[in-house]
Amino acid sequence: MEKIVSKTNPKIKNVSKLVSSSSFRKEQGLFCIEGLRICLDAVLSGVGIEQTFLTENISAKHHDEVGKIIAASDASYEVSQEIFSKISDTGSPQGVLCVCKRCDNVTDGIALSKSGKYIFLENVQDPSNLGTVCRTAEALGIDAAILCGCCDVFNPKVLRGSMGALFRLDIGLVDDAVDFLKRQNEAGFKTFATVTDRDAMKITDVSFGNGSICVIGNEGNGVSKEVIETCFERITIPMLGRAQSLNASAAACITMWEMLR
Amino acid sequence: MEKIVSKTNPKIKNVSKLVSSSSFRKEQGLFCIEGLRICLDAVLSGVGIEQTFLTENISAKHHDEVGKIIAASDASYEVSQEIFSKISDTGSPQGVLCVCKRCDNVTDGIALSKSGKYIFLENVQDPSNLGTVCRTAEALGIDAAILCGCCDVFNPKVLRGSMGALFRLDIGLVDDAVDFLKRQNEAGFKTFATVTDRDAMKITDVSFGNGSICVIGNEGNGVSKEVIETCFERITIPMLGRAQSLNASAAACITMWEMLR
Repeated sequence: MEKIVSKTNPKIKNVSKLVSSSSFRKEQGLFCIEGLRICLDAVLSGVGIEQTFLTENISAKHHDEVGKIIAASDASYEVSQEIFSKISDTGSPQGVLCVCKRCDNVTDGIALSKSGKYIFLENVQDPSNLGTVCRTAEALGIDAAILCGCCDVFNPKVLRGSMGALFRLDIGLVDDAVDFLKRQNEAGFKTFATVTDRDAMKITDVSFGNGSICVIGNEGNGVSKEVIETCFERITIPMLGRAQSLNASAAACITMWEMLR
Repeated sequence: MEKIVSKTNPKIKNVSKLVSSSSFRKEQGLFCIEGLRICLDAVLSGVGIEQTFLTENISAKHHDEVGKIIAASDASYEVSQEIFSKISDTGSPQGVLCVCKRCDNVTDGIALSKSGKYIFLENVQDPSNLGTVCRTAEALGIDAAILCGCCDVFNPKVLRGSMGALFRLDIGLVDDAVDFLKRQNEAGFKTFATVTDRDAMKITDVSFGNGSICVIGNEGNGVSKEVIETCFERITIPMLGRAQSLNASAAACITMWEMLR
């Protein structure tokens, strides 16, 4: 395996930029994942791996797993702990990072099926919320997530939170939430905006048939007024506590669970 | 208001230690919260505030809210941005931190009521998971959370994730999960261990009466074997995706929702 010994090696600079810049990731059609578990998950999920960067330490400690990753990767490089910490996004790096080709399951726009059930995320900004929602969506069996104005799905923190669900869950990126949801209404889908208003329909009273789309809003501001007005129905999760609000990922979790229950 | 101009002022040293050390927090019976929203929430929830540290900037920008916090605080000190960043636990500090007296709702041990429904967290280690679970528990109306082997509830990250729910939700800290759950069984409570085994009872088939206690396990290892064996029933959240696992806070969220649905 080729060794990279200089921090200023162009490959190292390139990886650092992929880790930190969402526009560079988009331009290159690449993203980075880090850690043994998620890199193995990428191999199993058939994600295209262009490059793998490894420390000597992890190769010795996890010989078999690392071997599978190297075998699936177009090229692999050994780097020192010091260089690895330069490309790593975590506090205590494990010592394996893969540069992957953007997955086919994440597309610009998306055509929905009348037999499906969908979650629509409007302006969800916190990477760990977005990762958790995608992980939960995939685990529960939501057919796809539609994202508008959210943080980049290929952000390393989103990828970590999703535990590999982003390699498998269908994800559509849309630019105009109102336009997209209007077209779904016209096509016969039922669109629901989740809100905290007490006069909205209780989520336990809704019968979510196939062709349902539920919208979860931004962490601080909820679903936008324009999107609420576009949706077929406003729905709410009944709450008893004084806080009267749930974390966006908890609200999404309960909503998806009720859709599929 | 008294100004503190030196980083080596004993009060500043004391706060830094409270922010970073859970044993020091316990010994002193104090904890720290940071940010306008949670500090105001502490005031509204009647939390005893010993000291408030403020930057000139936040006092000017949020005069009325800061006034309420100062009025509720035994003592207040103005510090520079530079000193504030020394006591702050966040990347971009807002400029207000309160040193609070440990709340009465968090107790060593807890007596449960037969009319209540409870969540038991075993070895939940991630502070944002713990904070989110407490926030969700309070919002949905769970009667108390019982914690065994979890990270410190007064960790600044837990407090932030809980959005003030930790000021109101009853929390019992227990040392021996098996002993505690055995005693609840004997007293007529129904204890449930959440697991991922496909042969466990589906959560949708369980009728959670009053006096139910559900156990959520550690992020990586789930509920311990000893606790599973102690519980009355093993229950599971049916999943369809390939991941076959939920984040601990998502699992807790669905479980509490089903208990109260």
